Amino acid sequence: MRIAQLSAESGVPIPTIKFYLRERLLPQGEQTSATRAEYGPSHLRRLRLIRALLEVGRLPVATIRKITEAVDDDETDVHEMLGTAHYALSPAPEPAPDDEDWRDARVMVDRLVADLGWDRVRHDAPTRDELAQALVTLRRLDMPATRDDLLLHARVADALVKEHDIKKIPFDAPRDTAVEALVICQVLYGKAFDALRRLAQESESARLFDALPAPGDAGKGPSEAE
Amino acid sequence: MRIAQLSAESGVPIPTIKFYLRERLLPQGEQTSATRAEYGPSHLRRLRLIRALLEVGRLPVATIRKITEAVDDDETDVHEMLGTAHYALSPAPEPAPDDEDWRDARVMVDRLVADLGWDRVRHDAPTRDELAQALVTLRRLDMPATRDDLLLHARVADALVKEHDIKKIPFDAPRDTAVEALVICQVLYGKAFDALRRLAQESESARLFDALPAPGDAGKGPSEAE
Repeated sequence: MRIAQLSAESGVPIPTIKFYLRERLLPQGEQTSATRAEYGPSHLRRLRLIRALLEVGRLPVATIRKITEAVDDDETDVHEMLGTAHYALSPAPEPAPDDEDWRDARVMVDRLVADLGWDRVRHDAPTRDELAQALVTLRRLDMPATRDDLLLHARVADALVKEHDIKKIPFDAPRDTAVEALVICQVLYGKAFDALRRLAQESESARLFDALPAPGDAGKGPSEAE
Repeated sequence: MRIAQLSAESGVPIPTIKFYLRERLLPQGEQTSATRAEYGPSHLRRLRLIRALLEVGRLPVATIRKITEAVDDDETDVHEMLGTAHYALSPAPEPAPDDEDWRDARVMVDRLVADLGWDRVRHDAPTRDELAQALVTLRRLDMPATRDDLLLHARVADALVKEHDIKKIPFDAPRDTAVEALVICQVLYGKAFDALRRLAQESESARLFDALPAPGDAGKGPSEAE
């Protein structure tokens, strides 16, 4: 198809498609004459992927280029290709490895990952630092996470991944499609889960307070009612 | 204590404390002379809360003022006060109620909330719209969430709230402290969970690919190279 049809089918305006071509996010079409190029289904798939990375993942163009390069390079195996997208979606933490709190937190994370049998997670995965950073902040705010807190969260995360995430990613589909599904799954189910957790909090808090006597009411403290 | 000591104990610089006083986030100290004011433990607690809302919750000053007003107003009961903080932490979605997809998604959310017995969640809770928006986006990207997807996520969120979140919030502590714990819990355990989910994904994906024959390569899995 021509660029006009590619635009119509994908819903992406022609100037935007030209921008993606210039930025090498979208491979050139097949040149059929000096002024005409033909585009195929792989271009449509790529446009969908770019939109998912831009609009859902909110990744910068330079990061998207790294991901599309991994998708295009057949030497990169599927696991590594997905890993590239995966790590690109991690908000980069700023590790302070000279700091003792940070080192302690990172040790806690590494021990947790090992104990859970997640030993195939790369040692330099930015995700480890990201978790360590949350732990450092919790400790500095005098609400340190215990090992039980972490184990509970990890068990629950593991269940969601095994029962949901892994099933949503079509590993045998075209490479574009698998990465697109990973990004969508990651970002949107992340948001959905977050909203559900807050809904559950509101519900539980209302239930709890409903069962409580009003303050000043016969000297009862709020949590005595449990 | 004087402002200098308040600064030393809280780690908040004097000019910043003066800014919080001007912005009415921090109540005035007790005026002991024309140029001197005394501050107490409630000011220390308030400073901690402000830092948590600013640095952890990344909320704008105007929103923080709304929350501190709810904390200061004893007429506001604890559940409502926590709700104010809770809703302030919701990223405001942009509902498009004229849109059919959006209406369908919102119906799906309301039905889910009812079926889960979360019927004390306010009908106008922004969290409902937030979840609806994630559903609309998933549908537009051709990866619609099924009711089972949602139920799985909701069940897991509910377990985390009951086994963790509710226990972390000291409902009978000073009002400042309860709100501070809610915000910290909300934001930092949200981040920690997100990181754990990505660690579990990486682990599961590596396991899966290890077990898969590499394309065209008699039985070799990608992650064997490690």
